[in-house]
Amino acid sequence: MLPNCFLTECNNFLELYLIVCESVTAKMHPVNESAAELTSLLTSAVFQDVHVMIFIGFGFLMTFLKRYGFSSVGINLLLAAFGLQWGLLMQGVWHLVDGKIKINIFKIINADFSTATVLISFGAVLGKTSPVQLLIMTILEITIFSINEHLVATVLEANDVGASMIIHAYGAYFGLAVARVLYRPGLRNGHENEGSVYHSDLFAMIGTVFLWMFWPSFNSAIADPGLTQLTAVINTYLSLAACVLSAYAISSLVEHKGKLDMVHIQNATLAGGVAVGTCADMNIGPFGAMLIGLVAGIISTLGFKFLSPILASSVGIQDTCGVHNLHGMPGILGGLAGIVAVSLGKKEGGDPVMQAAALASSLGFALVGGAVTGFIMKLPFWGQPPDQNCYDDSLYWEVPEEEDENEESLAHADHSKNKAEV
Amino acid sequence: MLPNCFLTECNNFLELYLIVCESVTAKMHPVNESAAELTSLLTSAVFQDVHVMIFIGFGFLMTFLKRYGFSSVGINLLLAAFGLQWGLLMQGVWHLVDGKIKINIFKIINADFSTATVLISFGAVLGKTSPVQLLIMTILEITIFSINEHLVATVLEANDVGASMIIHAYGAYFGLAVARVLYRPGLRNGHENEGSVYHSDLFAMIGTVFLWMFWPSFNSAIADPGLTQLTAVINTYLSLAACVLSAYAISSLVEHKGKLDMVHIQNATLAGGVAVGTCADMNIGPFGAMLIGLVAGIISTLGFKFLSPILASSVGIQDTCGVHNLHGMPGILGGLAGIVAVSLGKKEGGDPVMQAAALASSLGFALVGGAVTGFIMKLPFWGQPPDQNCYDDSLYWEVPEEEDENEESLAHADHSKNKAEV
Amino acid sequence: MLPNCFLTECNNFLELYLIVCESVTAKMHPVNESAAELTSLLTSAVFQDVHVMIFIGFGFLMTFLKRYGFSSVGINLLLAAFGLQWGLLMQGVWHLVDGKIKINIFKIINADFSTATVLISFGAVLGKTSPVQLLIMTILEITIFSINEHLVATVLEANDVGASMIIHAYGAYFGLAVARVLYRPGLRNGHENEGSVYHSDLFAMIGTVFLWMFWPSFNSAIADPGLTQLTAVINTYLSLAACVLSAYAISSLVEHKGKLDMVHIQNATLAGGVAVGTCADMNIGPFGAMLIGLVAGIISTLGFKFLSPILASSVGIQDTCGVHNLHGMPGILGGLAGIVAVSLGKKEGGDPVMQAAALASSLGFALVGGAVTGFIMKLPFWGQPPDQNCYDDSLYWEVPEEEDENEESLAHADHSKNKAEV
Repeated sequence: MLPNCFLTECNNFLELYLIVCESVTAKMHPVNESAAELTSLLTSAVFQDVHVMIFIGFGFLMTFLKRYGFSSVGINLLLAAFGLQWGLLMQGVWHLVDGKIKINIFKIINADFSTATVLISFGAVLGKTSPVQLLIMTILEITIFSINEHLVATVLEANDVGASMIIHAYGAYFGLAVARVLYRPGLRNGHENEGSVYHSDLFAMIGTVFLWMFWPSFNSAIADPGLTQLTAVINTYLSLAACVLSAYAISSLVEHKGKLDMVHIQNATLAGGVAVGTCADMNIGPFGAMLIGLVAGIISTLGFKFLSPILASSVGIQDTCGVHNLHGMPGILGGLAGIVAVSLGKKEGGDPVMQAAALASSLGFALVGGAVTGFIMKLPFWGQPPDQNCYDDSLYWEVPEEEDENEESLAHADHSKNKAEV
Repeated sequence: MLPNCFLTECNNFLELYLIVCESVTAKMHPVNESAAELTSLLTSAVFQDVHVMIFIGFGFLMTFLKRYGFSSVGINLLLAAFGLQWGLLMQGVWHLVDGKIKINIFKIINADFSTATVLISFGAVLGKTSPVQLLIMTILEITIFSINEHLVATVLEANDVGASMIIHAYGAYFGLAVARVLYRPGLRNGHENEGSVYHSDLFAMIGTVFLWMFWPSFNSAIADPGLTQLTAVINTYLSLAACVLSAYAISSLVEHKGKLDMVHIQNATLAGGVAVGTCADMNIGPFGAMLIGLVAGIISTLGFKFLSPILASSVGIQDTCGVHNLHGMPGILGGLAGIVAVSLGKKEGGDPVMQAAALASSLGFALVGGAVTGFIMKLPFWGQPPDQNCYDDSLYWEVPEEEDENEESLAHADHSKNKAEV
Repeated sequence: MLPNCFLTECNNFLELYLIVCESVTAKMHPVNESAAELTSLLTSAVFQDVHVMIFIGFGFLMTFLKRYGFSSVGINLLLAAFGLQWGLLMQGVWHLVDGKIKINIFKIINADFSTATVLISFGAVLGKTSPVQLLIMTILEITIFSINEHLVATVLEANDVGASMIIHAYGAYFGLAVARVLYRPGLRNGHENEGSVYHSDLFAMIGTVFLWMFWPSFNSAIADPGLTQLTAVINTYLSLAACVLSAYAISSLVEHKGKLDMVHIQNATLAGGVAVGTCADMNIGPFGAMLIGLVAGIISTLGFKFLSPILASSVGIQDTCGVHNLHGMPGILGGLAGIVAVSLGKKEGGDPVMQAAALASSLGFALVGGAVTGFIMKLPFWGQPPDQNCYDDSLYWEVPEEEDENEESLAHADHSKNKAEV
């Protein structure tokens, strides 16, 4: 019945989608800019790098769950592919030229950016929501994102080149608000599928490393060409490098016997990219960038270890991927660092008040928008999975028979071997 | 005996190869173009993006089989590495300058392209052919490809910037013709190894997503720089995004209980990139691109669900990877869309008759060339694997001990199951 | 006690690191070059390609071990992230401008390069060293590397654009010297964990293929823009393609029944990129490049099959990843090819004596520096793992429960569930 619901929904959704596309895209066409400029934009690796972060990075980062890899990569692809089209429209309506939406490489990069907010929120509710619920979240979150982005960039004229505030903090707290509304008491004591296996953790590292590597492109994608863009690349590169060191050090400090925890390595090593986002194109200097990265790695790792359990048990926020630690707190740190850097005159023309307003606006839209979206997603006819089917691909995917066999039989073999040895 | 055959073959093949290389490459040298131009070409990410599609994309897309991952990635690397050298020579002979073959970035990109046809055909016969058979197919398919490409591009002067016709349709029907000639009645009722396990499906998604992400580079690689190239990127981007939505919608429509099928997601989501290839650099507008992507996703998914079984049972075409659904039908759709777009004047200087002739030529060379190649590959001394060893790495690879146990135990489990069922 | 040691070390290390960073990076700032130039550098894909080789390539190439994947990818990330910062400082001190270290894209690429030496040496001691030992090796190896690089590039003015000598040969023999000093008699007869499983070999292929694909960027990254850089790309591309063929041919020749060995395919197929490094930007012609690649593939594969066992048994060098075959011998081959090419006048201004001196210098610094480093690493208080814990993630990582029993426990869970249901 739930999948049938998905089936019908998708059907209606497809028709609706066709109508929307036809009515709106009819107005789109590529801008006729100078070929040279387009080529230079085109040849820049930035667009493809961001693309890799969205589809490989976010997709595989979430494959750490033992039985939810198909959904992590597959639904990530679905949401991103739908979200970038929706984002293209939503952002387009703010910049109509002769009533038409112009498309160029920057618009496409921005469309990818807008989907990032949804993929971040996806991490907070991973394994506990149906595809239909997530498509609804995509539509609402990107619509609200485009309003907040317009406010921050055009009205407040705040600096947020790497989007610590408008993407990372916004996406995280939007998702956490949704997760709070969708709180499941039945999962209070965890779920047998809410864990990783050895190879699922390795798949997740593919996502981690691609996100880590291409973050300099993400934070410099919309920076002014030349020295400013180079500064964004170098600051991000240094912040991420420093973040890795503090994440490893703190992870070994807080784990028993000084062991490392894959969850920390998969996530906290990226916090430096989030936190340096707002300041990436400012003259904060290499040490400023490294300091931001170090602090981000520390608070992110500590958040995973100590804060997430409290949020789940006391506040009723079950944050599957710990987006609060990877995007939430580091995003706020980035916003605060931006206020400080601007007050110190690290960005000419910057205004600390506007930076603060941008941070407040992003958090406000996230929490309110997320709560409203959560209540809409909670309506009983979107096919939300029952507790016992959470974190399980087999609810939405044809899962290979062999796998269940495979694991059991392996054990059987071991048993028989042991017996043989006895 | 069969591997020894491979051994000897490879040996002879290596000597032969050395002689060919020396005699021909002696004539090669880099063109002395203006440094600036070369740099601009060089700095473009396009070459490396296409390279990723060929080696990671095609290689991992085929790792979905539970016991054929080594061959999928490994033989893909072998065929592509050999094919790009052969393609460099075959294409070179059509463009000799003072009796010399000139090499530049475009030639290298074209060499990668020519190998794509072989890797597509590889998908049709995956698991049922020996490395020697496949090396023979590589030589013949690329040779015939270069003839058809020369005919289409230089004689007919048809438009096929993204190569829907000359790469995708050609590669698919060439492979299907080979598969028909190599038909194995013994596999009529399937094979125990012809299926996936949970993690092999995740490995395949690495290939899917990298192909999906970099397709805009593939379709725009040889487009005119500037606005035309940008149009190719945007049209491909939008077609792929739309294709994902229809592939997911149709997959959930046709599967029982509205579940999603990994086979559809791994393949049909890419059909939009194939189908928009010919029109990619034409003024078809965003909606035109999206419509092509939507239709491609629909026919591709339906093809996997309903057509492939019929082809296998009634026509005797055992298409392991379903290349007919991913490259065949979408390739023809791309060719037809090109004819329509040109007739509608979406490409100045285009001639619909020549477009139709290009499509016919590509299909003709594919079917005839594939059939002839199939008969040559069917000769008894190429070490074709027996039915029971199909889809099994252990015939050509040293497979880890642990894995053998794994497999044994799997079999044990099956036995016990069978007994239990008895 | 050992992990606690790591814990304390990391703590001290973090404080030390902060002091060093502050004192030195205070002097860093981006160079104020012309925006145009920076943009052109920035837009080049080269930096990101090299980044992918360092973090995905090296990281996943080492995941072939059945129980050491977390450490392979995770410690690779730690060492590279720390090493690139240390490399930035070490290289900076040789090129101070007004007492300041200038940072630009080239410096960042060079920083990535300097870490490559450490990651190569890491392969030689993989599974037998603690993170603290490896961090010490990183500091010493990069410091010595920067001295040798300065000597080779600035004093001797030798050609080594692709760094066959200063990165590959240096990193390999440095690591082998360390491995010799850390020789473990207890592992003379191998170790139960020193082997691969089916999927760990597939993860390793991700590293192999990304290294293979982006090697043209690696060898051309610091070449003169324009034709010279293009030549480096094409020579590397052809050498790698030829190397694949010889690696496959020889692998099937030396393995029983002509089967292929994953170890050869994962490593020897890359030897062509190593060996063509020094000559990459010289006019050696396509056939020269292919010949170098063919020979590299042959000696590398033969080295894995016949030389490595002898080194382990007779010389006391336990080379976990066989870096001697992938980086050592091909690196020397590259240096020798450079001497020959320069003597044949393939590089104007080149001096074969200086080339020979550069090779000797690289090997000398590697062997002496590696031996000294090895003795420092051998000091008893760095928490070197005992023999029985070698090649095992669980010593340094929280490994998922399910995995300890390798799926057994999963099945147990199923059993108990079934019982519960009964």
